[in-house]
Amino acid sequence: MVSPFAPKAFPKLPNIRGVQLATASAGIKHKGRQDLLLVSFPEGASVAGVLTKNEVCGAPVDWCRTRLKRGFAKALVVNSGNANVHTGKIGKKAVVNTAKCIAKYSSCNPDDVMVASTGVIGEILPVESILSNLPKLCSKSSSAPWLHAAEAIMTTDTYPKAAWCRTKVGQKTVTISAIAKGSGMVAPNMGTMLAFIFTDANLPASILRGLLRPAVEKSFNSITVDGDTSTSDTCLLFATRQVKHSSIRSLKSPEILMFRNSLEKILMNLALQVVKDGEGLSRVAAIRVNGARNNISGRRVAKAVSNSPLVKTALAASDPNWGRIVSAVGNAGEKINQERLTIRIGGQLVASNGSISNKYSEARAARHMRSRIVNIEIDLGQGNGSAQVWTSDLTHGYVTINAGYRS
Amino acid sequence: MVSPFAPKAFPKLPNIRGVQLATASAGIKHKGRQDLLLVSFPEGASVAGVLTKNEVCGAPVDWCRTRLKRGFAKALVVNSGNANVHTGKIGKKAVVNTAKCIAKYSSCNPDDVMVASTGVIGEILPVESILSNLPKLCSKSSSAPWLHAAEAIMTTDTYPKAAWCRTKVGQKTVTISAIAKGSGMVAPNMGTMLAFIFTDANLPASILRGLLRPAVEKSFNSITVDGDTSTSDTCLLFATRQVKHSSIRSLKSPEILMFRNSLEKILMNLALQVVKDGEGLSRVAAIRVNGARNNISGRRVAKAVSNSPLVKTALAASDPNWGRIVSAVGNAGEKINQERLTIRIGGQLVASNGSISNKYSEARAARHMRSRIVNIEIDLGQGNGSAQVWTSDLTHGYVTINAGYRS
Repeated sequence: MVSPFAPKAFPKLPNIRGVQLATASAGIKHKGRQDLLLVSFPEGASVAGVLTKNEVCGAPVDWCRTRLKRGFAKALVVNSGNANVHTGKIGKKAVVNTAKCIAKYSSCNPDDVMVASTGVIGEILPVESILSNLPKLCSKSSSAPWLHAAEAIMTTDTYPKAAWCRTKVGQKTVTISAIAKGSGMVAPNMGTMLAFIFTDANLPASILRGLLRPAVEKSFNSITVDGDTSTSDTCLLFATRQVKHSSIRSLKSPEILMFRNSLEKILMNLALQVVKDGEGLSRVAAIRVNGARNNISGRRVAKAVSNSPLVKTALAASDPNWGRIVSAVGNAGEKINQERLTIRIGGQLVASNGSISNKYSEARAARHMRSRIVNIEIDLGQGNGSAQVWTSDLTHGYVTINAGYRS
Repeated sequence: MVSPFAPKAFPKLPNIRGVQLATASAGIKHKGRQDLLLVSFPEGASVAGVLTKNEVCGAPVDWCRTRLKRGFAKALVVNSGNANVHTGKIGKKAVVNTAKCIAKYSSCNPDDVMVASTGVIGEILPVESILSNLPKLCSKSSSAPWLHAAEAIMTTDTYPKAAWCRTKVGQKTVTISAIAKGSGMVAPNMGTMLAFIFTDANLPASILRGLLRPAVEKSFNSITVDGDTSTSDTCLLFATRQVKHSSIRSLKSPEILMFRNSLEKILMNLALQVVKDGEGLSRVAAIRVNGARNNISGRRVAKAVSNSPLVKTALAASDPNWGRIVSAVGNAGEKINQERLTIRIGGQLVASNGSISNKYSEARAARHMRSRIVNIEIDLGQGNGSAQVWTSDLTHGYVTINAGYRS
C-alpha cells in the first residue's frame, strides 16, 4: 500500500560534480532488487555526519563515528536488507572488509570509506554478496541515475525520497542533491532512517559539521513515527569542493547564510518525506508547542504528544479527542500549569484557562482532523520556548506491517 | 470482546467489618448501568493513597491529595463515565459539592470524603446526576455485593477485578478485600487505573502509607498497556481498625511482616488483572531485567522494552524478533554495554556477547511466543539491579478500540 503522500514523480536531481553513483542487486534479502549503493568521490570530499544516539548501534555506525573525525571521504557504500547490528566481531569484520575492498579497487585509504547498512537487526550480514559486487561497482565510469540510488537504500519505504536545490555561497552558485530513506524511526524488521546529502560547494568538514547539527535537530530529529530511535540512523553531508568560491572559515560568515537556509530546507523536505511514508499512515500531524520555559522543554512536550498511542489513534479516527492531548502534555516530564494551558486544533481554540472553551465546535475540529495534515497547537503559557514535531497516525496498517511475521 | 484472561468467576470477597457498599446508576455516560459507588465507613477508617504523577490531573485527584494528609476517611465515592479532568472551577466545585452532600447525609466532615472519577477527559461532569443519587446511597443500611462495587467503577474493562485474602497482624487474623479497574494506564476515552483496598486491621495512616508505596511500586507501577500515565490514577488503602490486635507503631515491627506480604500479593494480583485486560490484547509479556547498575536503571530498561510499539507488535505476531528488543534496550536512556547484553526468550538463550547465540532455535522461541504469557529476560551485565514490568501486546484490537470515534 503506497503512502497517500507519495509524490507523483521523482524529482529531477542534477549531478554533483565529483560525485559518481553505482548500484547493484546483491540479493542481501530479496533476489533481484537493487540493494547496494556505491557513491564515489574520485577527487575526494569533505564530510560531516550525525549518527544514532541509540546505545545499541550497528557496526557501520561505530565505523563512521571514528572515521568522521577525519572529515574526508573517497566513497560511501550503503546496503539495504540487513542492518548489521548486534552482530559482534563478525559484523565489525564485515565493515572492515567492505572498506578494504573498496579501498583496493578505488586506490584509497579504507578510512576514507563511509559505510551504512539498513534492514533487519541481529542477523549476520551476508558480506560475501557485497564484496563480490564491489569490483564491478568501483570500475563503472558513468554515473547511475539518482532514482536508482534512492531506490537501492529503501526497505519498507513505499516511495524513493530525494530533494535538491541550487543556492549560493558568496556570489557563486552551488548545488545540493540529497536522498533519504525511512518509514519509521525503526521500521518493521528492516529499520532505520538514512540521509545522504551531496554538494559541490567548497566547504571544509569543520563548516559542514557546524551546518549539519542544527539542521538535523530541526528536521530529522523533529519527526516521529513510532518513537523508537533506530540502531542505524545515519545522516551524512558530503562536499566535493568543486565550485571555486571564496574560502569559508567561519560559520558566522555572511557568505554561507543562503547555503545554510537551503540546507535546512532540503533536510526538512526529506524529513517530511520520511514521516509522510510512516508505516501504515493515513495522515500526519504537526504538533506545535509555544509558550514553553525554553525550546528543550517545548520539544519534550511536543514529543510526548507526538508519541502518545492514544493521540495517534485519535488522529487515525479523525477524533478531536483533546483530553488525550492534555493528558500527554501532563506526561511529558515537564512542570505544567494546567490553568495556563491553551489547546488549538486547526487554528480553532479548544481549551484555555484550565477547561474547554465555550465557543469550541467539535464538528469543526473533526472536519479539520479529516484532512491529510492536521495542525495541533499547544501553548503552555510559561515562557518563550517553542518546538514543532511531525508525527504520523497509528492505524490498523501500522499493526499489519509490524505484527506480520518476518519470513 | 472479552479478554482471554477474564476469570471464570468473580472471587467471593468477604465483607470487611466497618465497610459498607452501595451503588446506583446515575446515567453519567450510559443510561441504566451502575456507574456510582459509595463506600461508607460508619466508624471511620485510616487511609493512605498513591495518586497519579501526571502533571495534568483531575479535580478529584487534587482533592484527595490534600485530604490524604489527614489520614482519616468516613466515605469514598467513585463515578465512572467521566474523569472530571481539565474542567476548571466547575470541576473543582463538583467535587466540593459531592463531598458536602455526603457529609450532610452521613453526618461527617466533607474533608473525610475521598473522591475518584474515571472516564472521558475534558467534558463537564454532570454532577447533578450524582448529587441526586447520594441521599439514597447514604441511607442504605445493608451492604451491596462486592461484584456490584467492582462493576460500578468499570469503563472499558471487560471484566470486574477483585482480590482478597486473610492474613495476620501479630496473632490476630485480619482480612483484606480489594477492587480495581483499568484496561490501559489511559484507556480509550474513558481512562484510568483505580484500586481500592479495604482491611479491618488496626493500622494508623502512617503505617498504611509506608506499606502502600513500595507495594504500588512493585505492582501497579510495574505494568503498562500504552505507556500513558492517566490523569486520574488513584490507589487508596483503607483500614477500619475493627480487629483489636496489638498497636503497630513502626514499619519495622515483625508483627506486620505477614500483612505486608499479603498486601503486596493482593496488589500484584490486581495489577496483573489490569494488564491482562489491556485494550485489545491477545497475550501479556513479563519483561525481566537483571544485571542492571541499580533497580532504577533496570526499571527504565524494562519500561523502554515494554512500551516499544515494535516489541508489542512482535508479541502480537508471536514473532521472536529480538532485534527490536535489543534496539529498545539501547533507547532506554541508560548506558549499555552491547558486548555484555544477554537476551533470553522463554528461558532460551537468544543472544550474548554482542551477537546471536549459535544454539538459538527461532522455531522454539516462536513456539514460546504463541503462549498467553511470554517471558523475556534481559541481562545487562553491569551490576545487581533488577526490575520486572508486565506489558500487553499491540494488536488490531487496540487500534479498533482507540481509533473509534467517541460518540
